[in-house]
Amino acid sequence: MAIIESIPNVSEGRRPDVIERLADAIRATPGVRLLDYSSDPAHNRSVYTLVGDADGVKRAALALFEQAVAAIDLRTHRGEHPRLGAVDVVPFVPIEGITMAECVALAREVGAAVAERFGVPVFLYEEASANPARKNLEDIRRGEFEGLAAKMRNAEWTPDFGPAVPHPSAGASVIGARMPLIAYNINLDTNRLDVAKKIAAAIRHSSGGLRYVKAAGFMLEDRGVAQVSMNLTDYEKTPIFRVFEIVKREAARYGVSILESEIVGLVPSAALTAAAEFYLQIERFGPEQVLENKLK
Amino acid sequence: MAIIESIPNVSEGRRPDVIERLADAIRATPGVRLLDYSSDPAHNRSVYTLVGDADGVKRAALALFEQAVAAIDLRTHRGEHPRLGAVDVVPFVPIEGITMAECVALAREVGAAVAERFGVPVFLYEEASANPARKNLEDIRRGEFEGLAAKMRNAEWTPDFGPAVPHPSAGASVIGARMPLIAYNINLDTNRLDVAKKIAAAIRHSSGGLRYVKAAGFMLEDRGVAQVSMNLTDYEKTPIFRVFEIVKREAARYGVSILESEIVGLVPSAALTAAAEFYLQIERFGPEQVLENKLK
Repeated sequence: MAIIESIPNVSEGRRPDVIERLADAIRATPGVRLLDYSSDPAHNRSVYTLVGDADGVKRAALALFEQAVAAIDLRTHRGEHPRLGAVDVVPFVPIEGITMAECVALAREVGAAVAERFGVPVFLYEEASANPARKNLEDIRRGEFEGLAAKMRNAEWTPDFGPAVPHPSAGASVIGARMPLIAYNINLDTNRLDVAKKIAAAIRHSSGGLRYVKAAGFMLEDRGVAQVSMNLTDYEKTPIFRVFEIVKREAARYGVSILESEIVGLVPSAALTAAAEFYLQIERFGPEQVLENKLK
Repeated sequence: MAIIESIPNVSEGRRPDVIERLADAIRATPGVRLLDYSSDPAHNRSVYTLVGDADGVKRAALALFEQAVAAIDLRTHRGEHPRLGAVDVVPFVPIEGITMAECVALAREVGAAVAERFGVPVFLYEEASANPARKNLEDIRRGEFEGLAAKMRNAEWTPDFGPAVPHPSAGASVIGARMPLIAYNINLDTNRLDVAKKIAAAIRHSSGGLRYVKAAGFMLEDRGVAQVSMNLTDYEKTPIFRVFEIVKREAARYGVSILESEIVGLVPSAALTAAAEFYLQIERFGPEQVLENKLK
């Protein structure tokens, strides 16, 4: 049986009753499990993580839209995180027994259904996007809800599904398919933010680094520790161990060592196994040798 | 549901019809899956790997004994591998949803049933043994089938279950519970067998090394590569990465580097995850962050 993960990001992180109602809409959908959800009041945003088969995650997404479009009004929504719509982003991620191409087809199906049922314009992103200029979430979301009506007057921003103007209260939604994303931070044994920023610039794709790395330098003020905070968007092509080794080498340039690293949230087992294979120099190894895979 | 692995070692590796009959006995047992089996004609021995719940693996073990005791005669059995009986060794290994204590209880239950039904004396080993002098398989098996009758005349070698004399054709069996065993080899970038032997002596428990490591030095003649061949008998307490790093350091003492390592057969996912955590210096990480664990 196919397992798809979906991680809807919704523009509501302050009203507990609304946050719960959305969680209940997912929970009530047959064939779907809500694994996790969390809200950030400063961002005024909630993130839900669910898994299920194609039919299940599609129905859960539509149930979520129904509640969110009714309850959230972007005209009065304020928060630190950039957003375009009530249901801001919905990625579908292939986990098991399903291809990326099938997740792309699913994203298109859900996009068409959302546009038809709720009148919300939908932009396809990442693997589901056929247009290179509309692949990156950041590019699609630039200008946010407040700039959306003006942006959509440009023919380049005609949505993939639905009306050519924003939904009055629910804005627009970005729906697509992508690889599992790993949130990976490396904490440096220094309080020098400039070092973290320089390493982030060296490792991230946008400034010449590894293709599937997004990175920024931060300060963990309470600990006096500089952090290279990253999203790894394709751990198969840009593996964690390569990221770690480059960051370590760049840090040494400044006389800084790595204090520790951390994985925020979930990580596919294969991403860790690949690191073990690299460091232990394991040859002639296949996933069928992992006991848990054999038991499936 | 509990998952137990059992890996019976049988003293028959040459007659395909017998090897298949034993496999069929396992396959025909409800609640059990035969994951793998392989035979070595030089050793004249076959190893079966099966998983199931407690009731299933117990019934599979008894079905295997029934066929093996009928078909195998140790009085005419010849092979390179040391052995004591027709069904030589049967370990039970806790994999999921079951404790070591429960696997010990299962080993005792199976041992009592084997003795009663087939008149084969049974020695408990590893975690199932209450006697420190009879914990190690090598100690129990010393003298082999040919020396067994004399050995059992000594009260120290009264079996845990069954008659105080060997079964005429089926000898005796060693049954117990243990942690998953990882067969792990490190190949050295040298053809010097003496280096592999010295490193094996440094790393193995019996000569002062790590507690849960058995090791020997070998030559891979066809490749001209010296190998440190190991069994890791408790990967939680003696993790793979520590073994690898010590072997690497000892090899450097002789100007030798590590060519590669290999895992023979199955490895629990957690053993590889631990290596990733070590090398990537991951802190604040738990098994619930592995996506596959979350999906269970």
